[in-house]
Amino acid sequence: MSVHDLSIDEIMALTNPIDNTSPPDERLRGTLAFLFAQPSLRTMSSFAAAGTRIGLAPIQVTATGDALKDNTDFHDEIVQLSLTSTCVVVRASKALERDALSSCKAPVVNAGDGRNEHPTQTMNDIAVMRQIGLEGATVALIGNLRNQRTTHSLAIALQRLGIKLRLVSPTELRLPDQYVKGDVEIVHTEKRPEVDELVRDADFVYMPPLGYWGAADIDYSPAYGFDLARAQKVLKPTARLMHPFPRFAELDKSLDGSSFDAYRLQTMVGPVIRERILRMLLGW
Amino acid sequence: MSVHDLSIDEIMALTNPIDNTSPPDERLRGTLAFLFAQPSLRTMSSFAAAGTRIGLAPIQVTATGDALKDNTDFHDEIVQLSLTSTCVVVRASKALERDALSSCKAPVVNAGDGRNEHPTQTMNDIAVMRQIGLEGATVALIGNLRNQRTTHSLAIALQRLGIKLRLVSPTELRLPDQYVKGDVEIVHTEKRPEVDELVRDADFVYMPPLGYWGAADIDYSPAYGFDLARAQKVLKPTARLMHPFPRFAELDKSLDGSSFDAYRLQTMVGPVIRERILRMLLGW
Amino acid sequence: MSVHDLSIDEIMALTNPIDNTSPPDERLRGTLAFLFAQPSLRTMSSFAAAGTRIGLAPIQVTATGDALKDNTDFHDEIVQLSLTSTCVVVRASKALERDALSSCKAPVVNAGDGRNEHPTQTMNDIAVMRQIGLEGATVALIGNLRNQRTTHSLAIALQRLGIKLRLVSPTELRLPDQYVKGDVEIVHTEKRPEVDELVRDADFVYMPPLGYWGAADIDYSPAYGFDLARAQKVLKPTARLMHPFPRFAELDKSLDGSSFDAYRLQTMVGPVIRERILRMLLGW
Repeated sequence: MSVHDLSIDEIMALTNPIDNTSPPDERLRGTLAFLFAQPSLRTMSSFAAAGTRIGLAPIQVTATGDALKDNTDFHDEIVQLSLTSTCVVVRASKALERDALSSCKAPVVNAGDGRNEHPTQTMNDIAVMRQIGLEGATVALIGNLRNQRTTHSLAIALQRLGIKLRLVSPTELRLPDQYVKGDVEIVHTEKRPEVDELVRDADFVYMPPLGYWGAADIDYSPAYGFDLARAQKVLKPTARLMHPFPRFAELDKSLDGSSFDAYRLQTMVGPVIRERILRMLLGW
Repeated sequence: MSVHDLSIDEIMALTNPIDNTSPPDERLRGTLAFLFAQPSLRTMSSFAAAGTRIGLAPIQVTATGDALKDNTDFHDEIVQLSLTSTCVVVRASKALERDALSSCKAPVVNAGDGRNEHPTQTMNDIAVMRQIGLEGATVALIGNLRNQRTTHSLAIALQRLGIKLRLVSPTELRLPDQYVKGDVEIVHTEKRPEVDELVRDADFVYMPPLGYWGAADIDYSPAYGFDLARAQKVLKPTARLMHPFPRFAELDKSLDGSSFDAYRLQTMVGPVIRERILRMLLGW
Repeated sequence: MSVHDLSIDEIMALTNPIDNTSPPDERLRGTLAFLFAQPSLRTMSSFAAAGTRIGLAPIQVTATGDALKDNTDFHDEIVQLSLTSTCVVVRASKALERDALSSCKAPVVNAGDGRNEHPTQTMNDIAVMRQIGLEGATVALIGNLRNQRTTHSLAIALQRLGIKLRLVSPTELRLPDQYVKGDVEIVHTEKRPEVDELVRDADFVYMPPLGYWGAADIDYSPAYGFDLARAQKVLKPTARLMHPFPRFAELDKSLDGSSFDAYRLQTMVGPVIRERILRMLLGW
């Protein structure tokens, strides 16, 4: 439900570098139910692919019509779904309540709960960082840190792993205090040259979408957006840009396939990392 | 399509007590197509889980966009779907017409048609009652009996099985005449103490949601709602409460997990009962 | 992406007559992801059934909520989906751009892009024509030829195969020029008796829906609609009516199951033809 629920050992096991994986070749063993109150493309398709890797057929609640509009109790519905399915993956419009899910019969995965957390995305992100080299690295989280659940979970996990972390954002988009625990460098700025200086020594620059989840009225992409020219000018040649997608103006397509592009890998590792998560939860 | 389509022998075969079932371990044998004009969580996820138990991958028509809003002919679409799928599960916004489906190539299951019937839910319900003990039992259907298709199908089936049945509802929410065939006790009341007396000897108290499907303007939950305190005060210690879900004010969470709670089992038996239905229809 | 992408040999291989096919019996080998910006019933369920025939579990993006309403980049989302899925089937609201999809990792199938093309439907249609007998045949496409992508792809393919083609439509619903390449007979008329004369020698009469995709203000079904009486009066006894469905007033149900009915077969061949397409794209 939260990155806090995972021990350091579990985080390390889930984010180990990925060897060449063989394609799935499984018999049907049950269903992986998706209850999504918000849209999803990467997370859902990754979990679905992960499901087929362990024999679970993906099902979506609900395709036509929307059970969630019936004024039914969302947590009640999760419990119900856990009675009929092998595993339940939930995306909620607000933070999930642990106590309301205590009578679930099947494992429930938090695939993003409102503006709170998105722990499985963080396992993806850290797996990519470790595959490239996270030890001794400096990670800069920049831009919209306020409303982005991916960033919240990632910040928690990186702090717990003792990674050198720098938070760079406009004042109004700063990371909420509850996600800052340790010794973290925090800078608020709206100026492009200052952002340039603050990413110059970073090994990973992680940029959540600016135009999403209660975006600011002000367009901060002039200060926080990157294209290939800017990356070549200010980043280390070995630096990598990461982005949870979907992207808006902050991440230009000129970067796609360049040496800075680690976001393609972020999406690609999804099925394998989610397979590990499902196996851990199911004990398979 | 209707509980009337099933012989007593078939009803008994479908609702036999459930032994411990092994998890599915099947090869892919085709698709189980869902055409749902209304939302579903329990029914859909139960049928999907049942599908995987016999090798059918669940598919939903239609995920994005809504074919049913195109002013297309709904029965035409069911027939079309029967030409491409191994089995079709339909939820309709009004009663299905048998003649319009005569050219279907695959079996079609009625998973709830408007305010008419919901026969597979009834197989679930009777399976639970038989598992607990239906012989010689008194069943009280209480509350919103007018617009609830689950109650319509259940009332028909219980009458055909010769079970002692009592219908207790506000006058305006009484069971429509076409679902009453035999010797049934019918009481209309809006008074809580009278409801108390009418459930006192019941072995099963079946409560459909009050706040759903053309709910009444009046809130009848003071008379017809139950919490643990009321259940302990007026019900037999061995009595069971049943509810097709989703629930609203009529079924308080204090009852969850209590000795009265048979509704958790109602949801849990869904995949196995639906597997039996699919096997019967497909001859597998 | 377009019928132009297929060689004549490939078209012939995909549309070979269908022998009796055995039902699927496969292990799970991955996911077949559907990204549909418009509703689909036949195409989606056919591809899903085809997927199970080669071990792919169908998943739909996105069930609840709508990723496509997020102002995200549609082509970006296709690329992303190709990173997590074994194969991607796309229905777009406007013509797909080939260049924007060059970095896809998995095969992408055009399952209808706006008012442009619908190449896999055309493989279905030609397979049916060949099964019945296309050599030396005269094909009349009649009615709404302007906005119907199925008709666009079919017209291209039939011209490339050298089939005798006649286009009969109201002036305002004529086939756009870019889909007419060769020696084709074109007649514009709004008069029923003229339509009668123009289909009299046809072996196949292909009618797209009139009431769909930017229908005309004028109701042309008096001139272009067929029921059994009209078919018996004006068509050759061996002629076949084809229709991509869903149908509206132009195709009366009295024709269902008659000797003229080839549209039932059109839907029925869907899973096998789509299986061939997937195998060709995946090299399986």
